[in-house]
Amino acid sequence: MSRFAIQGGHVIQSACDVLRDHYVIVENATISAVTRELPAGITEVLGGPHDIVIPGLINTHTHAPMTLFRGMADDLPLMTWLQDYIFPAEAKHVNREFVYIGSLLAAWEMTRSGTTAFCDGYFYEDEVGRAAREIGIRAWIGEGILQFPTPSLSDPSRTIEHNRSFIERWKADPLVKPTVFPHATYTCTAQILKEAYALAEEYDLLFQIHLSETASEVEQVRKSHNMSPVDYLDSLGCLSERTLAAHCVVLDDAEIALLARRKVSVSHNAESNMKLASGIAPVPKMLKAGINVTVGTDGCASNNNLDIISEIATVAKLHKITCMDPTVLDECTAMAMVTENGAKALRFPGGRIEPGRPADITVLDGRAPNMVPVHNPVSHIIYAANGGNVKDVVIDGRIVVKNFTSLTVDEDALIRECRAIQEHISRS
Amino acid sequence: MSRFAIQGGHVIQSACDVLRDHYVIVENATISAVTRELPAGITEVLGGPHDIVIPGLINTHTHAPMTLFRGMADDLPLMTWLQDYIFPAEAKHVNREFVYIGSLLAAWEMTRSGTTAFCDGYFYEDEVGRAAREIGIRAWIGEGILQFPTPSLSDPSRTIEHNRSFIERWKADPLVKPTVFPHATYTCTAQILKEAYALAEEYDLLFQIHLSETASEVEQVRKSHNMSPVDYLDSLGCLSERTLAAHCVVLDDAEIALLARRKVSVSHNAESNMKLASGIAPVPKMLKAGINVTVGTDGCASNNNLDIISEIATVAKLHKITCMDPTVLDECTAMAMVTENGAKALRFPGGRIEPGRPADITVLDGRAPNMVPVHNPVSHIIYAANGGNVKDVVIDGRIVVKNFTSLTVDEDALIRECRAIQEHISRS
Repeated sequence: MSRFAIQGGHVIQSACDVLRDHYVIVENATISAVTRELPAGITEVLGGPHDIVIPGLINTHTHAPMTLFRGMADDLPLMTWLQDYIFPAEAKHVNREFVYIGSLLAAWEMTRSGTTAFCDGYFYEDEVGRAAREIGIRAWIGEGILQFPTPSLSDPSRTIEHNRSFIERWKADPLVKPTVFPHATYTCTAQILKEAYALAEEYDLLFQIHLSETASEVEQVRKSHNMSPVDYLDSLGCLSERTLAAHCVVLDDAEIALLARRKVSVSHNAESNMKLASGIAPVPKMLKAGINVTVGTDGCASNNNLDIISEIATVAKLHKITCMDPTVLDECTAMAMVTENGAKALRFPGGRIEPGRPADITVLDGRAPNMVPVHNPVSHIIYAANGGNVKDVVIDGRIVVKNFTSLTVDEDALIRECRAIQEHISRS
Repeated sequence: MSRFAIQGGHVIQSACDVLRDHYVIVENATISAVTRELPAGITEVLGGPHDIVIPGLINTHTHAPMTLFRGMADDLPLMTWLQDYIFPAEAKHVNREFVYIGSLLAAWEMTRSGTTAFCDGYFYEDEVGRAAREIGIRAWIGEGILQFPTPSLSDPSRTIEHNRSFIERWKADPLVKPTVFPHATYTCTAQILKEAYALAEEYDLLFQIHLSETASEVEQVRKSHNMSPVDYLDSLGCLSERTLAAHCVVLDDAEIALLARRKVSVSHNAESNMKLASGIAPVPKMLKAGINVTVGTDGCASNNNLDIISEIATVAKLHKITCMDPTVLDECTAMAMVTENGAKALRFPGGRIEPGRPADITVLDGRAPNMVPVHNPVSHIIYAANGGNVKDVVIDGRIVVKNFTSLTVDEDALIRECRAIQEHISRS
């Protein structure tokens, strides 16, 4: 049996619930206790008397393989970016190997910056699962469903069947969970959306989708269906507790009320929405309506990193200035968004440090210059820290990062492979 | 003679002017060459074949000692924050020792995150200068001038005389430069502002001031003087090339044109303005008008870190979403804002990597997971990096940070002293 302790000068059990000077005890894959004294017989202790121990952070929307496109195209209008850069690069370069290497890179970056679980959607998504398992990060993976040919499926009429076999391959994995991921309302027919939702119900899986990301998307869907994307998805019966809607930038009050009533979770991707000038999601309104709002980085083609700590820092500040009110979206709410709200969206018992919960834990260095002194550890996570402050990471009871070092990555080999792909892209 | 090299896979000489695979040669306090081959006889080489070498970053507005207040009061309305938290804490705790320790902490954090020069304003500012000299960071320091008693001067009628002796003590220092720092138009009489400006002229110094930070400030000044703060300052003859105006959030087009005409530099403090919900400075308009816009973190009571790389990342994204245009404020402009624009504001020949310039250089780790692969190194600095990626820092030819380690800080002792002050504050 594996058994070790994580020591914290501060242990943030959930949101603003903070203990001083405690140990978190991990037994196999589970938190077995949170105690003042180190139990006898434990020899391995992570963290330290000045460190801040928090629930593992959860990134609810990304496209891991796109990490290989980081910095390839910035400062461009959305359609130029997509049509002249991203789509051609995907058509030319995305294959199994690209997805596998890009996902290793993403999983390395996420674990090193404190993320213990992520929800992903792309193509050749088996390779994302393989990379996640290898690095030891919890992943919810979705094979993109579209009405068009994709890099991984030339015949769109086979998309549901293709997804069913994907689900069968992953449904029993302890760390990596399959999801159903229709890309968006404007890239899937009604028939495909309904069949995709039925598939999610059949296997009791998460149903994730891009929703109301831009005004032009909403306009396009209104033209085609005489309804907003939210109303359209509801008319197809696709909104429920199993739905995780990414972006939700362009929403009116009635749509917010509907998403709340249907218990949909939302993944807020502030930095991507800012960088692409898509708009600002009405997060304080959504929270007030009772929607479970979580945080995602989106893919590195539009962000350009996977640092969920920097992302939540942006989120906490962006809505203050948008509402011209420094009291909206306080640090406790922000902390919940990247921990327990994320877990709830993924229908997973993590996101809190409590006996019996999965041992997904992140430790931040309390001796880093930007973390000294500690008047309030929650404030530090939200407003002062960045991913570089992450010292140790435990996922499913396994030590993945120890003292700023990844234990599960062959860094030299991976960097070499990423560079080779980058050079191949730049030559082509 | 001290002579060493800094190797970069990419050397960003200025803004988007990038060299592949070069060495920057440092001799004493100056960059002597930028070469493809390592000159004979050089044995010390910082950086490496995959690192990104950039001009040292410049933070043009902060209050270093307030780093000790980091996380003490968040998510509060501006006036509650100031009057119920910051002012009482300053009255009770700010003394010479506090300023010295807080400035050591700030200088440690700034150097570790790639900042090589900062412009500061607070009280007991000699202690900021002492700390900067000790850590080896370039500093422009300003002793706060107000019409009220301050922690360091009980008799405001002596403020100009008090500043004159402060200037005399620092005017010959090679690394630390005195400035004249009247706090704002609403906290200084016209007489004090005019005398302060005359003092700056007499010694040929920078004149720094908070300007048009909030709508309520503008309203207050309009009530008192029937003019905006910008017009009021101009009427007193205080706007020129030596003026560095912090914030400039609430400006109309005529004020922007006036600041441009007067060649005033602006310090943009996006994260502080967001967190306090002060507003969004019209940066793209200012840049278009030809104003020299630079970047500041503001103090840690309102930000809550001094990471200028995270700050510029926020700046680059914030204005895209504010203007709903992803092409405004591109990465080259952003890069210039934190390097050569900052140097120009401080009237200092740094901010570029060129032979003959001061040897202020920052090296970023090209092997960090969030920096792999490198399609475009400038994109990485602006959109992917954070202060934790800073590997080496050279200031005035002195190696201050080497391989992620501060060479000029006694970290254990400093952390202990910061904690003692934090505990003292929390007990009181």
